[in-house]
Amino acid sequence: MTNKTWRVGVAGLGTVGGGLLQFLAERPDFAPAGGRAVITAVSARNKTRARPVDISSLAWFDDPVALAASPDIDLFVELIGGSDGPAKAAVETALKAGKPVVTANKALIAVHGAELAALAESQGVPLLFEAAVMGGTPAVKMLREAMVGDDVASVAGILNGTCNYILTEMEKTGRSFADVLREAQGLGYAEADPTTDVGGFDAGHKISILAALAFGCAPNFAAAEIEGISDVELLDIKLAKDLGYRIKLVASAAKTEDGVAVKVHPSLAPLDHPLAQAGGALNALFIEGKRIGRIFIQGAGAGAGPTAAAVAADIADVMTNAQRPVFQAPAGALKPFIAIDPARAVGKAYLRIMAKDQPGVIAAISETLAECAVSIDAFLQKPVEGAGGVPIVLVTHATPESNLLDAISRIEKLQTVLERPRLLRVARI
Amino acid sequence: MTNKTWRVGVAGLGTVGGGLLQFLAERPDFAPAGGRAVITAVSARNKTRARPVDISSLAWFDDPVALAASPDIDLFVELIGGSDGPAKAAVETALKAGKPVVTANKALIAVHGAELAALAESQGVPLLFEAAVMGGTPAVKMLREAMVGDDVASVAGILNGTCNYILTEMEKTGRSFADVLREAQGLGYAEADPTTDVGGFDAGHKISILAALAFGCAPNFAAAEIEGISDVELLDIKLAKDLGYRIKLVASAAKTEDGVAVKVHPSLAPLDHPLAQAGGALNALFIEGKRIGRIFIQGAGAGAGPTAAAVAADIADVMTNAQRPVFQAPAGALKPFIAIDPARAVGKAYLRIMAKDQPGVIAAISETLAECAVSIDAFLQKPVEGAGGVPIVLVTHATPESNLLDAISRIEKLQTVLERPRLLRVARI
Repeated sequence: MTNKTWRVGVAGLGTVGGGLLQFLAERPDFAPAGGRAVITAVSARNKTRARPVDISSLAWFDDPVALAASPDIDLFVELIGGSDGPAKAAVETALKAGKPVVTANKALIAVHGAELAALAESQGVPLLFEAAVMGGTPAVKMLREAMVGDDVASVAGILNGTCNYILTEMEKTGRSFADVLREAQGLGYAEADPTTDVGGFDAGHKISILAALAFGCAPNFAAAEIEGISDVELLDIKLAKDLGYRIKLVASAAKTEDGVAVKVHPSLAPLDHPLAQAGGALNALFIEGKRIGRIFIQGAGAGAGPTAAAVAADIADVMTNAQRPVFQAPAGALKPFIAIDPARAVGKAYLRIMAKDQPGVIAAISETLAECAVSIDAFLQKPVEGAGGVPIVLVTHATPESNLLDAISRIEKLQTVLERPRLLRVARI
Repeated sequence: MTNKTWRVGVAGLGTVGGGLLQFLAERPDFAPAGGRAVITAVSARNKTRARPVDISSLAWFDDPVALAASPDIDLFVELIGGSDGPAKAAVETALKAGKPVVTANKALIAVHGAELAALAESQGVPLLFEAAVMGGTPAVKMLREAMVGDDVASVAGILNGTCNYILTEMEKTGRSFADVLREAQGLGYAEADPTTDVGGFDAGHKISILAALAFGCAPNFAAAEIEGISDVELLDIKLAKDLGYRIKLVASAAKTEDGVAVKVHPSLAPLDHPLAQAGGALNALFIEGKRIGRIFIQGAGAGAGPTAAAVAADIADVMTNAQRPVFQAPAGALKPFIAIDPARAVGKAYLRIMAKDQPGVIAAISETLAECAVSIDAFLQKPVEGAGGVPIVLVTHATPESNLLDAISRIEKLQTVLERPRLLRVARI
């Protein structure tokens, strides 16, 4: 171990950057691998904004790219965010200058991870992003480092705390999505523009990264199937619960001989399952390996403290001088990401059909399902006040997605059915 | 990354060693950090025993110490076991020869970890032991590497799969400890001499290691308070459940300003708590950090596949050439382990008092408890057939252990009480 002092430049001083400043102020002895890390230069949009730590003694850069290029820093920390623009330019500049990079930027890694990994490895410097997924819960380290002694078959979990908070509150308080979202925005749990979170894109970025780490393929955010939670209705939360399930935004990645499927869907998890029990802003993840079996991890997925701790752990990793590929396999050896045709997916599903309250409805629906080779595992018809019809809900046995979609189109056309049936997947966990 | 081929010598070819041979046979391309790992030499007690992989082409050593000293290996893997004897001699020999060491030996690290860490660091070589705790679930890596950006306050969990299996079966089948142990031995889940497991010593080794990693102190197995499960009675399992708890063997380590408390006790966990729900041979652990909050991890704690995967991950770590202290802080900077006086511990407790079925019993007991400043949170009196008296069980509010012991001694002397009350702790989780 060396006693080198690492001069750290930090671009982006929002929640995470502020947390990192505070951590290093509280722990001036932070020297986990012998060397010391000292923040010497910063860049942010607003120089004079109030911050938890006085930054007046640090070198200031209006331009994060100039900071990344500065010969006076040894390590660049990117906390700007966004898949392109200044974040990407700054990270590329730092790597090209031979500087290790630590980032919390999930969009950047999910979209441009493979090319950045190639650049980092060609320069022989690390590119680390523990804080990009699950905040302080070390999902990235687990998959990249601890699972190399195994063949990972699948990962699945709850990766967006905002969505999990909203779904938990909807169930707990019986309020609508829009209502709870508004409250979450007021409390600062959701952004003013919530699309990234509630649209499932944030979880999509994260699961794309985990898939790359788990399977040794290039991250491919564009190939992820993504559905957010904005259409989740309270009615479905209640009916799913009657059937023994809780609706969660589940992000999953699975590998078969045909390729990789990366998905984000509001999904049903059995009430007694650990994923169903991870409430509020918690994140949780299952990793399934051929030898290791199933590992479950759970923790806070966001916040200044946990995320800054993850950045600090990455800084410590840089200081060890470890030589390790960015994505478990060297960038040149990453397998191409071959997406599996979603229509070929097979799984259990939840269908809610709003029907007229008249004889023959169930017969017509069940006949249609049988024609499409969809068999039923659980069935519930329950009058719900103000629902505008009678909801008929059922959970199928494992069925090819194409059969389900076929059945939905046919049921929609039945004369007794009021609207297109609502489809939700049952999580494969 | 280098393309170096690492010649690996493996001492001990039991379950884990066999699993490692099999893993590297199945994955001849295992090169997670660029280099390759090839087992070239082995040592075991019996050369001719049937093994999952043919070892006839490998160099054979009758003496593991000679293998550790061999100039023909670059990395030594110790899978012999035991805190002293050949395991320790071989590990010391390898480190003195400047060879990285990977071991699954929890006893060795819990007892001699600090001196071995000093030796490894003075030679500038890694000493890794992921497989020593929780098998393939990377608890060691999490605490040593991911938690350096935080201050860990406590860890607590289920670290011995055999005990967890026995307790789970006792509850499920209503059979006694002795009965279930005998069956577990028949199935190979428990050793012929089960003392290390059921006596709590294995969990004690593991939690001593985790405490050292979490708090940056020297491991000190001798200072751990250890109570096993051999005295856990079915009656207590049932009565605890009536009160909303499940009995688990909980290993915990907590840091206060006064020092560190490392404990293994059969303890009550609330039925809806993740630790209570980790059944069978599962291992599970909570890590509580100042910034990160609570992280929970769960997975298989033993077995050839998971443990060999952990050894393989450590081999991969060696190949990265990372320079990192063995126990989160360099050996010379490890804090001394200051044990907290157990009598000063404060916690909730479960007491079972076997009393004569006659008037005034409860009055006498509750008066005695009040005299000792022990206040009651839950109380249950329930006739149990064949129990030889009436069991009166109660759960206290948080109480200093010294008050509890005082109360137990006084209650034992009451004329209406048949035997010394049974004390079990409520886990602080």
